[in-house]
Amino acid sequence: MARVVTGVKPTGDLHLGHLVGLLEPAVTLAQSADEVFYFIADYHALTTVHNRDELERNVRSIAVGFLAAGVDPERVTLFRQSAVPEHSELCWILGTLTPMGLLERAHAYKDARAHNRDINAGVFMYPVLMAADILMYRAEIVPVGKDQVQHLEITRDIAQKFNNTFSQIFPLPQARVETDERAAVVGVDGRKMSKSYRNTIPLFADDDAIRSIVRRIVTRSVPEGEPLPVEGDIILSILRAVNPQEAQELTAEYQRGIIGYAQTKDRLAQAIIERIGPLRERAQKLFADPEALDTFLEYGAQKARKEAAATMKSVRDAIGLARAKAAQ
Amino acid sequence: MARVVTGVKPTGDLHLGHLVGLLEPAVTLAQSADEVFYFIADYHALTTVHNRDELERNVRSIAVGFLAAGVDPERVTLFRQSAVPEHSELCWILGTLTPMGLLERAHAYKDARAHNRDINAGVFMYPVLMAADILMYRAEIVPVGKDQVQHLEITRDIAQKFNNTFSQIFPLPQARVETDERAAVVGVDGRKMSKSYRNTIPLFADDDAIRSIVRRIVTRSVPEGEPLPVEGDIILSILRAVNPQEAQELTAEYQRGIIGYAQTKDRLAQAIIERIGPLRERAQKLFADPEALDTFLEYGAQKARKEAAATMKSVRDAIGLARAKAAQ
Repeated sequence: MARVVTGVKPTGDLHLGHLVGLLEPAVTLAQSADEVFYFIADYHALTTVHNRDELERNVRSIAVGFLAAGVDPERVTLFRQSAVPEHSELCWILGTLTPMGLLERAHAYKDARAHNRDINAGVFMYPVLMAADILMYRAEIVPVGKDQVQHLEITRDIAQKFNNTFSQIFPLPQARVETDERAAVVGVDGRKMSKSYRNTIPLFADDDAIRSIVRRIVTRSVPEGEPLPVEGDIILSILRAVNPQEAQELTAEYQRGIIGYAQTKDRLAQAIIERIGPLRERAQKLFADPEALDTFLEYGAQKARKEAAATMKSVRDAIGLARAKAAQ
Repeated sequence: MARVVTGVKPTGDLHLGHLVGLLEPAVTLAQSADEVFYFIADYHALTTVHNRDELERNVRSIAVGFLAAGVDPERVTLFRQSAVPEHSELCWILGTLTPMGLLERAHAYKDARAHNRDINAGVFMYPVLMAADILMYRAEIVPVGKDQVQHLEITRDIAQKFNNTFSQIFPLPQARVETDERAAVVGVDGRKMSKSYRNTIPLFADDDAIRSIVRRIVTRSVPEGEPLPVEGDIILSILRAVNPQEAQELTAEYQRGIIGYAQTKDRLAQAIIERIGPLRERAQKLFADPEALDTFLEYGAQKARKEAAATMKSVRDAIGLARAKAAQ
């Protein structure tokens, strides 16, 4: 498979949904793609995170997550977006080719606008920076959730406009829409697991914290010895994402009426602990050595900057800007 | 006087209006200010100029104009905006702090919108890049035309928002509104001299071209020996900007009825030739040596990048971005 680019916005702590929907697919993808660029989208995070320590913590959390999940920094160019300021330069350039109407029709912007009159211009320009993120590495494949398909269409429109106006620099990237069912892990309240619902199981939580969170899952009242209802059961739903085989076994026990919720919760907590245990251990080592983490990210940033510098050289030359030089 | 920053958008050839309204005041200002940054705003020009050679030509024309008019590259940091890509990075950052409403209320945007449905996002974001241009050098004084006063208010709003949200990095810049009458040089059709009216006297035109342009100025029909009307006379209006004393003398001759339009046009053409002659000669030398011009601009860019790197270090640190490094 061709060159793949994908980014993650560092807006909060990682949870089980990220492991199943993001980190593990990223590892799998990296094994089959020719070249992979994963970036931590801290420029994007600035539209909502206005606190230095929080941003720094979020960025580290995502970086640790990727590495602990098994992303190989030799095979994958893993980096922090703001370590490659060319993203913002290409964003400006592409913005001068992007019709206002294209951005005004973006669903995410329209939603944000409908809910909040005071959104900032970064929210509006988000699809343009996303286009810059993707086109900078001349991506061919971009794995996206369904909600990002329109933004990728915008990227293609902008790329085409640039190619037609100046010269054929950018391949038109293809969306690879993630349809994997696992991507939608259920949270402890039965809705999709999401930081904004406060229903998550944090990925780096310790065993006691996990048991305590699982114990608070709301269950139905079922007389002892009777079957537990399977349909819509939150415990089974989460377990299916964590350990499908165990979920199948537990479903059978539900139906035979030989188990109560206290036990099923213990089983779920135990399955989560087993699933995230090794990852958590690797994560703890990475968190404990911030300098090593910086070295990983700087290694990726160097590879990314080399690509970005090559793209920007072509772009600047095509549109007639000054030749790039760094401060001395 | 304190630190002054001002930019010029390279959107067309220089004309007499630029000499009187821009280049000469820039030279005067540079003599009284402590520190001066003049930049050629090529990132801004991208919103309208989508042709590499045209942009390149426009940039050179402005650079030559500044130098030929007597801007001293030792006293003035004269540079090309795109040689300092930090401008676009700060633009993104400031955009995440800029309410949409602030930009939607900008007059220039509203006008552009009213006249053209398909304007690009660069036009909308223009006041944010302008804020970045100004704040990058922690400007205290910004000379602006009346039409730019609102944009400078936006800059102040954004700076205040940044200072309140993160830390006190940016001084709030003061507008210095140019009220000089000379700024509005009349064009050959009697309206303000402006490229968009096609009524300009190009600054680097040769003597014959100037005579030919002046000869085409439309005049009234006045019988020989009668006084020429002074009120609203285009020849006298232009001459006032070029050589006020000569304009006074010619006015007297108009009133005494001892002169015809053929002669007054010759006098105007001669006055323009004398006024721009030495400048044009210096300009021709600069145009003839593109490498020397590049060296001038690169010298200024180095000074500007040093300032920009220092500002961006503080900004990145305050908001929590990666430490800046260049491609290796």
